[in-house]
Amino acid sequence: MVRPDKMPDVTFARAALERLLRPRSVAIVGASPTPGSLGAAVLANLERAGYDGAIHLINPKRQEIAGRPCLPSPEQLPLGVDVAVLAIPRVGVLEAVQQLATRKVAAVIVFSAGFAEGGERGLADQRELVRIASANNLIVEGPNCLGLVNFVDGVPLTFVEQPSKRLERPSIGIVSQSGAMAAVIGVNLAARDLGVSFSISTGNEAVTGVEDYLEYLIDDPNTRVIGLVVEQFRDPPRVLAAAQRAREAHKLIVLLHPGRSVAARASAATHTGAMAGDYDVMRAKVQRAGIVVAANLEELCDVLDLALRCVALPQGGAGVITDSGVFKALMLDLCEEIGLDLPVLTDASAPRLREVMPEFIPVSNPLDLTAQALVDPQLYHRTLAAMLSDERLGSVVLGIIQTDKATSDIKFPAIIGALRTLRPSKPVVFAGLDEGAAVPTAYVQELRALGISYFPSPDRAFRAMARLGALAGGDGSEVDTSPIKTGASLPDGTIAEHTAKTILRPLGVPFPAGRFVTNLEAARAAAQEIGYPVVLKAQSPELSHKSDAGGVIVGLADSKALAEGWSQLLSNIARFRPGLVLEGVLVEAMAKRGTEFIIGARNDPEWGPVILAGFGGVTAEILHDVRLLSPGLTNDEIIRELNLLKQAPLLHGFRGSPPLDLVAVAEIITRVGRLMTGEPSIRELDLNPVVVYPSGEGALALDALILVERST
Amino acid sequence: MVRPDKMPDVTFARAALERLLRPRSVAIVGASPTPGSLGAAVLANLERAGYDGAIHLINPKRQEIAGRPCLPSPEQLPLGVDVAVLAIPRVGVLEAVQQLATRKVAAVIVFSAGFAEGGERGLADQRELVRIASANNLIVEGPNCLGLVNFVDGVPLTFVEQPSKRLERPSIGIVSQSGAMAAVIGVNLAARDLGVSFSISTGNEAVTGVEDYLEYLIDDPNTRVIGLVVEQFRDPPRVLAAAQRAREAHKLIVLLHPGRSVAARASAATHTGAMAGDYDVMRAKVQRAGIVVAANLEELCDVLDLALRCVALPQGGAGVITDSGVFKALMLDLCEEIGLDLPVLTDASAPRLREVMPEFIPVSNPLDLTAQALVDPQLYHRTLAAMLSDERLGSVVLGIIQTDKATSDIKFPAIIGALRTLRPSKPVVFAGLDEGAAVPTAYVQELRALGISYFPSPDRAFRAMARLGALAGGDGSEVDTSPIKTGASLPDGTIAEHTAKTILRPLGVPFPAGRFVTNLEAARAAAQEIGYPVVLKAQSPELSHKSDAGGVIVGLADSKALAEGWSQLLSNIARFRPGLVLEGVLVEAMAKRGTEFIIGARNDPEWGPVILAGFGGVTAEILHDVRLLSPGLTNDEIIRELNLLKQAPLLHGFRGSPPLDLVAVAEIITRVGRLMTGEPSIRELDLNPVVVYPSGEGALALDALILVERST
Repeated sequence: MVRPDKMPDVTFARAALERLLRPRSVAIVGASPTPGSLGAAVLANLERAGYDGAIHLINPKRQEIAGRPCLPSPEQLPLGVDVAVLAIPRVGVLEAVQQLATRKVAAVIVFSAGFAEGGERGLADQRELVRIASANNLIVEGPNCLGLVNFVDGVPLTFVEQPSKRLERPSIGIVSQSGAMAAVIGVNLAARDLGVSFSISTGNEAVTGVEDYLEYLIDDPNTRVIGLVVEQFRDPPRVLAAAQRAREAHKLIVLLHPGRSVAARASAATHTGAMAGDYDVMRAKVQRAGIVVAANLEELCDVLDLALRCVALPQGGAGVITDSGVFKALMLDLCEEIGLDLPVLTDASAPRLREVMPEFIPVSNPLDLTAQALVDPQLYHRTLAAMLSDERLGSVVLGIIQTDKATSDIKFPAIIGALRTLRPSKPVVFAGLDEGAAVPTAYVQELRALGISYFPSPDRAFRAMARLGALAGGDGSEVDTSPIKTGASLPDGTIAEHTAKTILRPLGVPFPAGRFVTNLEAARAAAQEIGYPVVLKAQSPELSHKSDAGGVIVGLADSKALAEGWSQLLSNIARFRPGLVLEGVLVEAMAKRGTEFIIGARNDPEWGPVILAGFGGVTAEILHDVRLLSPGLTNDEIIRELNLLKQAPLLHGFRGSPPLDLVAVAEIITRVGRLMTGEPSIRELDLNPVVVYPSGEGALALDALILVERST
Repeated sequence: MVRPDKMPDVTFARAALERLLRPRSVAIVGASPTPGSLGAAVLANLERAGYDGAIHLINPKRQEIAGRPCLPSPEQLPLGVDVAVLAIPRVGVLEAVQQLATRKVAAVIVFSAGFAEGGERGLADQRELVRIASANNLIVEGPNCLGLVNFVDGVPLTFVEQPSKRLERPSIGIVSQSGAMAAVIGVNLAARDLGVSFSISTGNEAVTGVEDYLEYLIDDPNTRVIGLVVEQFRDPPRVLAAAQRAREAHKLIVLLHPGRSVAARASAATHTGAMAGDYDVMRAKVQRAGIVVAANLEELCDVLDLALRCVALPQGGAGVITDSGVFKALMLDLCEEIGLDLPVLTDASAPRLREVMPEFIPVSNPLDLTAQALVDPQLYHRTLAAMLSDERLGSVVLGIIQTDKATSDIKFPAIIGALRTLRPSKPVVFAGLDEGAAVPTAYVQELRALGISYFPSPDRAFRAMARLGALAGGDGSEVDTSPIKTGASLPDGTIAEHTAKTILRPLGVPFPAGRFVTNLEAARAAAQEIGYPVVLKAQSPELSHKSDAGGVIVGLADSKALAEGWSQLLSNIARFRPGLVLEGVLVEAMAKRGTEFIIGARNDPEWGPVILAGFGGVTAEILHDVRLLSPGLTNDEIIRELNLLKQAPLLHGFRGSPPLDLVAVAEIITRVGRLMTGEPSIRELDLNPVVVYPSGEGALALDALILVERST
């Protein structure tokens, strides 16, 4: 899939897309009686689905196919057909599209490959396709796609064989750049008795893309949850705006997007640029917008399943009911790993649970009922009721040993009965422990009919619940995100430290006191004013790593040391880069030691500003131990993110070190975010290091670097 | 499951265990005609299995049950019955066991719970059970167990309903402390058409434990792979010895063992003690012995499946054949995460692959065949043949879109035919991409008959392959592991730095030059001899954190500074711990700066010595970024382990720092390992920090601490 160009800047109106997705008339260009041909497969799908709109067949060599009349070419079509499906080889596509446009067809679906992904010639053809579409206000799906299926009205527009299934209730919409993945997900969801509203494959996205169909599905009353498979978003701002609308409409979006392993991160002037790669930025942005990013194909379907079925997002930790002590221990391991909170329950702290259980079973979470439920199956009902009424628990996972039909016949009716009576207002999920157990299908179907997702093995059930639980975390409160402008006119290129500090200081970024000087006399006066000890720092946009050049002399305690330091600095630079003329030297107060952070930012041309924050030093870099934040977070939200750093225990006092001033860090992050929003020409920004002091004592940025690069 | 005591120090001979596991006569104490009762269930299982040995029923209230005569008590049994199954309440168990012992029964199985896990009374009863067993050389399985099933001869000795299945070929042996888990795994493996030889639940392990049955299964010709579920090993040295024998017999052991999340690590005197918890030590030791430690229940069964079916362990990276481009990208992400190497293949570097494929498909790994295999199904055969003959690839994963019966009917026959013809000598696994696809069962069975594991979704297939691949990594070469003795008599308790260094220096652990002194004059003489600058370090076993006490004064450049430092040191200590009398002061050469490591060791009373190595500092501690090593590794193996540190890039020169002298680190680790083996009374040992210099320049341990604690 190659998409060399940005899509044309056209947003299709809902009504226009509706003619593609819910057509009243369909033309098949390349209709064929030959079984196995694309044209025959498309027609067979429409007939099997009982499509009751008009069907126009086009084949120059046939008078009729299967009793339907054939037209020799698109030129004979009546005006204004909704969709034409092009089941013809690549070579004929452009001519046919031109003819269809002339007949005022609203939309075409192009299966053929060999366009933008097929070398120079294909690329030129795709550009021509875009030109024809733009000139005629024609919607194109594809090329290089598998078409779409509308399960709401029963309209398959694809050559992939489709079951004749109609949708019964609002369900899952699928949009995938890969047609194969759309099909794979469809098979998976069908096997779970999950309905699909629309399944749309976007292929090369010459004209319409994921963003168009996503917007449509958010407004579609037949769609409650949306699954996306994307290799590259074409229009990030539209994705983020759509995500916002989806949240308002209480529709969850789950995204599968490869690329997290791409080792080659953008070569960049700043640390931030190097550590905030394209995939990382995308993920930070869409997650902030409330989209769930699935770790793999299995998780995509698992989360879609749970999201469609569960009554609400889980708020808080999970309660677990199980039949096995070892399983309880295993789940403690798993939940620590995946960050699913299992609130501690004890005999003393959970009297309702205590009350309903036999004496010899202690209250705990996970709650191990042992084999007792085989003797007393109503135990499931009583413990489930107690957990559902416990405010500490936001969801319940049932981890059940199913064994065989005989055991299932004891356990499932009890559990199903309990769920039917209790009508949980919290998500409940059923996880069988013994994958492959011969559980009568009817029980699984009954569970699903009650809105309970059934997982044949436990691990994925817990992971899916954790993903939804994490989502419920955001508090959605608003903060001051008003953009800050520097007031200065920013020159293109690297802005050296002293200028960057002059720009940033008035915005509220804390730096040590300092003066920019160009001779030793001025340096002496500056040091006198600032107070010893001081630091000297050579200033030139060409010295991006001035420490390596010997361009930083620290700990100058008095006037004599200052003079010595001055000479040393100049000779270091002369040796390191003969002939380099410094802009000058920055004289700064020597900062107290503290914990080093890096705070950076990047204006992604597509996704907009992100701020990076983490501990300083090579360890953080090696471990990729940074957080990427969107502007607009509250201090609490920022601190919550900082607590997700791998080295987070260092934030709170570790082995005698004091807790750090995270509010000061959050405030710098907020200022940087507002600046990046206000000055989109700032490509990258580094505050590195930012020295953070104990709680209440603030933070100081010791260095600053700004890279300006106006979009062309 | 509570096992308060160590098991009696008895190893049961193979012949004795054989009477339990393959009995020719069985007595059921508590035989019953009541459906649903334990006694009835045991008899029903034996009858359904067609057991042809003698069956003796014991029930004081019955003359006969189901046409079989009943004895009133165990005292009427003939002498020397092989196994008695106790299907009676706890209260009657001890008396019955005593009676059975008198009748020279070889083994008893005790289902009843309420022994060691049931309070004071139960604990006393379990001790009595052990006493009776020891006195009579009686084998006991349980109590608190579900019994066992011998699928080789068809002998179920359990009340859990069993299918009447017989084993056809060497297969999987299961030993589980949890009876529920043994049953759960049995269901899972049966659903995969995998045979089980013996399934044994050990319960409270009053007399026999996992170790006994593991040893039996290693010698059992009907068992090729062994699955263990263990909460706590009772006899670690036997486990390690058994693992060694299993490797020699080419039998893989896969272990599921909860406990990795247990936050409460042993409170310990040394950093090593704190960072090498019991679970970590167990895992390091069993993995070193070649046991696969499964991450969860799913992985246990997945690895058992793959290990039983695959022809050999994969040597080297994996080749992947798939039908989807997005899947290819997803698998790159996954394999980076799980450490499964996917060797890079290109048009240029893989001519055999290039040759067999259509022009328009580029060679890559994963290899995306697109939908082309639907048109040309023999493409699977040709690409599989090319990959199997490629020496860079140790295994092949097929990631196939199955869709429905029609698609399966095209793809499966081609793939199955290829596998039948090619008879791969490398592991091949089939991973369906679309979980739930309606694949005809016959295809899955045919794959399995060809020794190919079938996974319904891809993620777990890759993970299982990665686990087996990692196992093949060990080179098994031998090194000098001869134990070193210190020659000194080690006193119990903490050995302070100067003594520890005196002990360790002759063994080859490198320290800075130093002298232990007790007055300033001697310090001056020492410094003169060593050469300035020097360091002063206060010495007392009561100062375990001497830096915090101001007990370390560094950078003393001359005699004057030394005198000032001496006073400073004494006054610091007096302030920190008034009244403390120092043993003396260590005068040492000031070491150059370098990268700080920690090397430590722990003699686990059960598992023996482990060495811990990692970067120094709090970051390593927070990230738990250490490796636990067994003594006896080669330098290469040690360096391979160091390269698994999360911060490993720092080892090889990062951002201008030089590569480190890892050979010097490996040599210290080897010495420490030999010492720990030679001096088991050393409980813990810390070399912290060890300063590591650039390659070729060695390493220096700056501090040393030994904790001696003789076992009681």
